Amino acid sequence: MSDPKPLFVVLGVGNGQGTGGATARLFAKQGYRVALMGRDPERLQKFANELNASGGEAAAFPAASYGFEDVLAAFALILTYAWPSGGPSELRVALHNAGYAGPRKGLMDVTAAQLHDLAEVNVHAAFAFARASIEAFRTNALDARGKRGTLLFTGATGSLRGNTTTAAFSAGKFALRSLSQSLNKEFGKENIHVAHVVCDGPIMTDLQLERLPKEFTKDWGTNADIRLSAASIADAYWYLTNQDRSAWTWELDVRSAHEKW
Amino acid sequence: MSDPKPLFVVLGVGNGQGTGGATARLFAKQGYRVALMGRDPERLQKFANELNASGGEAAAFPAASYGFEDVLAAFALILTYAWPSGGPSELRVALHNAGYAGPRKGLMDVTAAQLHDLAEVNVHAAFAFARASIEAFRTNALDARGKRGTLLFTGATGSLRGNTTTAAFSAGKFALRSLSQSLNKEFGKENIHVAHVVCDGPIMTDLQLERLPKEFTKDWGTNADIRLSAASIADAYWYLTNQDRSAWTWELDVRSAHEKW
Amino acid sequence: MSDPKPLFVVLGVGNGQGTGGATARLFAKQGYRVALMGRDPERLQKFANELNASGGEAAAFPAASYGFEDVLAAFALILTYAWPSGGPSELRVALHNAGYAGPRKGLMDVTAAQLHDLAEVNVHAAFAFARASIEAFRTNALDARGKRGTLLFTGATGSLRGNTTTAAFSAGKFALRSLSQSLNKEFGKENIHVAHVVCDGPIMTDLQLERLPKEFTKDWGTNADIRLSAASIADAYWYLTNQDRSAWTWELDVRSAHEKW
Amino acid sequence: MSDPKPLFVVLGVGNGQGTGGATARLFAKQGYRVALMGRDPERLQKFANELNASGGEAAAFPAASYGFEDVLAAFALILTYAWPSGGPSELRVALHNAGYAGPRKGLMDVTAAQLHDLAEVNVHAAFAFARASIEAFRTNALDARGKRGTLLFTGATGSLRGNTTTAAFSAGKFALRSLSQSLNKEFGKENIHVAHVVCDGPIMTDLQLERLPKEFTKDWGTNADIRLSAASIADAYWYLTNQDRSAWTWELDVRSAHEKW
Repeated sequence: MSDPKPLFVVLGVGNGQGTGGATARLFAKQGYRVALMGRDPERLQKFANELNASGGEAAAFPAASYGFEDVLAAFALILTYAWPSGGPSELRVALHNAGYAGPRKGLMDVTAAQLHDLAEVNVHAAFAFARASIEAFRTNALDARGKRGTLLFTGATGSLRGNTTTAAFSAGKFALRSLSQSLNKEFGKENIHVAHVVCDGPIMTDLQLERLPKEFTKDWGTNADIRLSAASIADAYWYLTNQDRSAWTWELDVRSAHEKW
Repeated sequence: MSDPKPLFVVLGVGNGQGTGGATARLFAKQGYRVALMGRDPERLQKFANELNASGGEAAAFPAASYGFEDVLAAFALILTYAWPSGGPSELRVALHNAGYAGPRKGLMDVTAAQLHDLAEVNVHAAFAFARASIEAFRTNALDARGKRGTLLFTGATGSLRGNTTTAAFSAGKFALRSLSQSLNKEFGKENIHVAHVVCDGPIMTDLQLERLPKEFTKDWGTNADIRLSAASIADAYWYLTNQDRSAWTWELDVRSAHEKW
Repeated sequence: MSDPKPLFVVLGVGNGQGTGGATARLFAKQGYRVALMGRDPERLQKFANELNASGGEAAAFPAASYGFEDVLAAFALILTYAWPSGGPSELRVALHNAGYAGPRKGLMDVTAAQLHDLAEVNVHAAFAFARASIEAFRTNALDARGKRGTLLFTGATGSLRGNTTTAAFSAGKFALRSLSQSLNKEFGKENIHVAHVVCDGPIMTDLQLERLPKEFTKDWGTNADIRLSAASIADAYWYLTNQDRSAWTWELDVRSAHEKW
Repeated sequence: MSDPKPLFVVLGVGNGQGTGGATARLFAKQGYRVALMGRDPERLQKFANELNASGGEAAAFPAASYGFEDVLAAFALILTYAWPSGGPSELRVALHNAGYAGPRKGLMDVTAAQLHDLAEVNVHAAFAFARASIEAFRTNALDARGKRGTLLFTGATGSLRGNTTTAAFSAGKFALRSLSQSLNKEFGKENIHVAHVVCDGPIMTDLQLERLPKEFTKDWGTNADIRLSAASIADAYWYLTNQDRSAWTWELDVRSAHEKW
């Protein structure tokens, strides 16, 4: 019987151009099956198609919402999915990359609906995703580096500091960072590695190029010194995944070489 | 026409024995009207009665839930309340002291219902309470110390560190701490002071005396060196409330003299 | 026999206009004898004279340098000093307020002499001052708040963050902050309280008014919202000194109401 | 003319068994020339011999002390050294791994001599080493990852927290961490990468096996889950060295999988 193929699951990939997408691409290229979770079935499928077209093996597992039960339900489908190439899979790496994408405004502009979304992304979905991932990891044998699995979380500047227009965004990111630390401490002894990456600065994506002032982004395309790139963040996740049990990282920060901070 | 009487509002007072209760008592003693918010009308009323019986002026404003709208609705009643002693009030100090009181257990024991409660207390109610408080402060003149109002948040050890059995508790407390920092930065320029107190250790209350191992608490009653007392935390809130505009504190920690940390 | 008079010692008062001076003034006004330590005998004496002229009781104890032994030697003189008003003293509060005042420049401009000064102020003098203070506190009875003494340290923005022109300044301030935390943990159980105040922003003094760009300071004199004032920081030290044993603070930050941070 | 060979310099390698030694071995294996700096000429030479015997190219550059000028003088010799294999070198990576090795005791046991050593290791030597490294990096072209050089610092648990027996150790480690952050911010724009690794726990070395209680270390040799290994920390330095300019890390932590923290 064939060895199980390693499986990577990511929650939150948007249009595939950001951190989640780049990490999915990297793990696909490294031979992982890729399960894509999110709320937009169409975008997920489109990105799965892209990965499949370029030699990867990916499938979309949309969640009806980022509520606790909906995330668990979508996750459960991953574990029983029959991959086209056949043979068993083993969930090895899980990345929570969903982010609250509400507007950056002051307290008075934060709505109940935005808070609902914020809490779903950073609390309800995060706990459900972590739980399902770790339950799956627990069934794995140790790999060559002494791990049963790696659970990754995408942080941001707002994970470390609240600021004038980030009351909502940061509250969620603080919660997520806390969760990653609690889980690192709780599950290390089961050889399950939980890590958090603080992406300190906006990542070069179509969305940011559109959203941010031109003055700020105008040289991103030509100057690698000033853009925080999703592909390089993916490299950080790859590094964390492959750390030996004798030196695991909980948290690292990343920013472009010339970033002022 | 008489000067308005200063008004203090606190969200989360439990049975009145903890931080919220002690702070309410102190502000009542200092001449503030006291508005008590929480989810249990009976307990609120009982504590209001206690404050009124000992010379204070207090009233209960129960919220139907810690959802955003319910908190706003309960808060609105405070601002139009006709106090028995007559004459206008001015909201001067608001304390968010509600805490997620779920069990301290590992990730696998955290339920969807607990996460719902956690998010309500630390996100939905917190944003609503902050918003309503600051809206009220904005209508105030500057006081003698150069303030329109003071918004206070109760933190805990879990505000700074996640740990093996505090995945849920800490996620909420991190979120709350972030909110307090964002708001400090956003509203300082309007002379509204937002502060966060990290209570590093269990506070001596009936609940903790019941919940914690006897071995840990057995000398609390007789040894002031080893108990973190609610009345002393109230002193910290009083100090923060009265800081001059030329040196405002965002955060301070408190623990008993002999606490190991 | 008369009760001993409480004694306050401060290391680093400059010309008396900054934090050290304001705190000395406040403690003198509150009935403390004041021992002034520093490296400039003339300035110390001048400030002692000022305090004495306004009803305080102060004396100068210059150290030959901020080397370990020189600080211990100067400190020893305080403990045997015969105060003009007669009767015994008891050292109750000690404030390390000495700061490295070298230029804010990049790494390449930091000289060996500046590093020598930096290390003396923040390491050698700090350890000597802490040691002598705590040795004296140990001989005290508990006061009404359950303390034998309070050891205070003045921090700065640079205590929390290194930055492009503060490689030297911050290295020293980080070291000092660490010392304050270690000592808080080590001596709390002896009822000796160690605390650290992060002064986040330049304090309004003649020196800063001269050093900083006019554009930045031009309204300090008339606008209390934008100046961090030494007298208010002194209030923070007074508050910390008088905290009850059941809720001691290790660290608090202070900044002006309108400070951007 | 031949391309210059990449050069790695490390300050502090002890007997070669710890972090400095493991990192030197890894860089030697990866084709770097290795310059060993420290205070003990004999140990340095012995370790250089070991590296040379196993196919590396290493040389010893002892400093007369960890004073500022002595470190600069020893460093200068590296840059003009004629390596046996001939041809030019280019300093590409520098690791400050020197640590204050004084006893872990309370404040009252810290001596002036220990403070002197502490300040030399963490302040005087650190600034001199950083300065000389960065001056050398500035003369380099960008490499394939967009860097002129990488300056690394070894941190510890004591870099983040002072504790009851680490007043001295932590003061130094805090200072060093601050320096690394300041320099990251100052020199990123020159494409010089400065990073700090927090080694959270004792590293398995002969020294620690001897120093720590047997009960604590008895299974280190057989259980990779509970030992923090120098070779894995070296992997972290290798990863940091090879990060692309679009996502540089200032700080990461490492600990063994089962470490309680």
